[in-house]
Amino acid sequence: MKYQHNFNPTISDEDVFKEIVKEKESIGYYNLVKQDTSAFKDYAKNVKQTNIVVIGIGGSTLGTYAIYKFLKHSKDLSKKLYFLETTDPIDITSKIEAIDLDDTLFIVISKSGTTIETISIFKYINSLVTCNKNNTVVITENDSKLNTYAQANDIERFEIPKNVGGRFSVFSAVGLLPLAMVGIDIDELLNGATDIHNSFFNKENTYEMILNKARFFVEYKNSFNINVVFSYSSRLDGFNKWYIQLWGESLGKIDINSTRQGLTPIGIIGPIDQHSFLQLIVEGRRDKTVTVIKVDDFDSNLKIPHVELEGLSELDYLDDIEFSSLINKQADATIESINNLNDIPCDVITIDSVSERSIASLMYEYELLTSVCAKFMYIDAYNQPGVEAGKIILKKKLEAKV
Amino acid sequence: MKYQHNFNPTISDEDVFKEIVKEKESIGYYNLVKQDTSAFKDYAKNVKQTNIVVIGIGGSTLGTYAIYKFLKHSKDLSKKLYFLETTDPIDITSKIEAIDLDDTLFIVISKSGTTIETISIFKYINSLVTCNKNNTVVITENDSKLNTYAQANDIERFEIPKNVGGRFSVFSAVGLLPLAMVGIDIDELLNGATDIHNSFFNKENTYEMILNKARFFVEYKNSFNINVVFSYSSRLDGFNKWYIQLWGESLGKIDINSTRQGLTPIGIIGPIDQHSFLQLIVEGRRDKTVTVIKVDDFDSNLKIPHVELEGLSELDYLDDIEFSSLINKQADATIESINNLNDIPCDVITIDSVSERSIASLMYEYELLTSVCAKFMYIDAYNQPGVEAGKIILKKKLEAKV
Repeated sequence: MKYQHNFNPTISDEDVFKEIVKEKESIGYYNLVKQDTSAFKDYAKNVKQTNIVVIGIGGSTLGTYAIYKFLKHSKDLSKKLYFLETTDPIDITSKIEAIDLDDTLFIVISKSGTTIETISIFKYINSLVTCNKNNTVVITENDSKLNTYAQANDIERFEIPKNVGGRFSVFSAVGLLPLAMVGIDIDELLNGATDIHNSFFNKENTYEMILNKARFFVEYKNSFNINVVFSYSSRLDGFNKWYIQLWGESLGKIDINSTRQGLTPIGIIGPIDQHSFLQLIVEGRRDKTVTVIKVDDFDSNLKIPHVELEGLSELDYLDDIEFSSLINKQADATIESINNLNDIPCDVITIDSVSERSIASLMYEYELLTSVCAKFMYIDAYNQPGVEAGKIILKKKLEAKV
Repeated sequence: MKYQHNFNPTISDEDVFKEIVKEKESIGYYNLVKQDTSAFKDYAKNVKQTNIVVIGIGGSTLGTYAIYKFLKHSKDLSKKLYFLETTDPIDITSKIEAIDLDDTLFIVISKSGTTIETISIFKYINSLVTCNKNNTVVITENDSKLNTYAQANDIERFEIPKNVGGRFSVFSAVGLLPLAMVGIDIDELLNGATDIHNSFFNKENTYEMILNKARFFVEYKNSFNINVVFSYSSRLDGFNKWYIQLWGESLGKIDINSTRQGLTPIGIIGPIDQHSFLQLIVEGRRDKTVTVIKVDDFDSNLKIPHVELEGLSELDYLDDIEFSSLINKQADATIESINNLNDIPCDVITIDSVSERSIASLMYEYELLTSVCAKFMYIDAYNQPGVEAGKIILKKKLEAKV
């Protein structure tokens, strides 16, 4: 008797790494760390407008928002950044009311060039203000219909390379151009990404961490089908949203054996969600891994003052504690209480500071982790065939105008 | 041979209903629909300040924020509402910078009266501005330490009844007082909740819907351990967060047979998350139910104008479509594409309008659904023992000041 099988054996770390190195030749995001950023910086420094409005959705906005949200209160930024990304009429109206459109630069971002939400909103903006080369820039693939529009109107164009997927595009023009405009140091962003890139591809500590973590996630995916990122800073809620897209859309796929795969991402914020989601983690079903993200240095000495409140003296032990210390101790207490349970996989990422370098390192690391998980799962991280059916149905409904 | 077993048989709808009716005598939230609101309205109409700042966390803020976020751009509100709810120092500093504290009324909300985050922030506020009966109100249990503080300082107090849990408290003073202050019609909120209350307890259509849905969720909880709420309006993102607390903290429990229960809530927003999470729903593992929430009437005639964009004429079929129609067609296309797959449980809730009555109906319905699920799961929906261990660890760390 002879057997032959096509079940996937667990492949070795070394083989996965070889596949990633090979993939690096064709998948563009890996190599964005070493690009020349002078075109973005040159354009950015000549922008006269006070407001920068990104019109885009999904991969065209989430990464930029994550970085902007993380840094905006800690840097002295020169301009304000807004995002028009939904077709909700109340949202569009209320956001536009708050912006002086005559003092605004519009960045229209669509990889395909024909994203319905983006073009719908851009049409609406065109009815409110004249869009031309003085107040509009386009970021798209070099042969898209949006590119044709820009060319016909002499509007500046920046390219999303075809081999850079939307959700992996934050370190392309998609993220770097608007972030440079508001005064974020985009070279430091790339330095942060490069730190992780080099550590991984030179097989230093990031290599081992990512391979081990990805292997764990994939080998235990049937027990722990939910991955919770528990970020201990409100400034990381944009990162959480970006993570949800990256993880969900990259790993929710049918594998080479026609089996449905998928790890479900959840992003929560500490300490707020200690008061909402932690109970479920601690006492609920053991279907979740937890990754706690901490910020080592908030660069803030905001302190709980010594104020006597009659009746509340039992809480005076809080006096003189810095809020940055309080939030990190809250994180530590959550980690310790989860680890004491012994049956919830929990890891901790501590980023150094509220800086370009730190957030970019974190994001690039998550991109690599996603790519490595996909290799272990025998899926394509870079496509999204599951959303096409809905787009076709929508188009029919809209064309029928009923 | 004789057998006796204590496995839980599936109990009948009728028996669950009887238990809910019995529970209604001791659990307070059910009966908040018929309270006298005049004390809230009387206090609210005398508030002179322009800014209302709620200091609270979790159940003390999430419900209020859900209603405020849903309505604030559709109503002509007289005051602005802010929430101080996290210990993130950057968040505290940036929020406080944006508020004129001398023109602010502070509402300090803590059921226990000794919530660390809330008292820490309140102490900090006390170092910036004098808090007294002219600019401070307290909402807490009637025998808490915070109540003692208020009494000692002649500060107005409103009560959270002991039998109303924080996450079920939105229709108590916790939600009604701040919402009345900014100009939201709190009687209409209660009317919306009453509609659902009566329909359920009179065994009309809400009764059948809630029982069927809860039974399905619980019977299939091992296949579908994740419940996705997919809200097609950006104004519902506060509702999504409130739902996550309600669902997660109420149902993540150990049942009477010492078995871990728990249904994991996820809240996403359409159409934005069509570009992030939908791929995972459609092609990923079949571990999710999907509830789509639509708004029937956005009360907006915002339209995609007929604007010719050279190169983009293939999208001219969008012209003259109202954004409210577009977003609802996006919802319908998502629903149809999910239903076409035949193996993802999907239900749709359409609320009438962007009004007090609609959002309150939706929220009260979710409270009832949560209570009914808990009955089917043989758990206590109203406690949260799983977070106590972390609180004790935190207190030790803080008292040690290391």
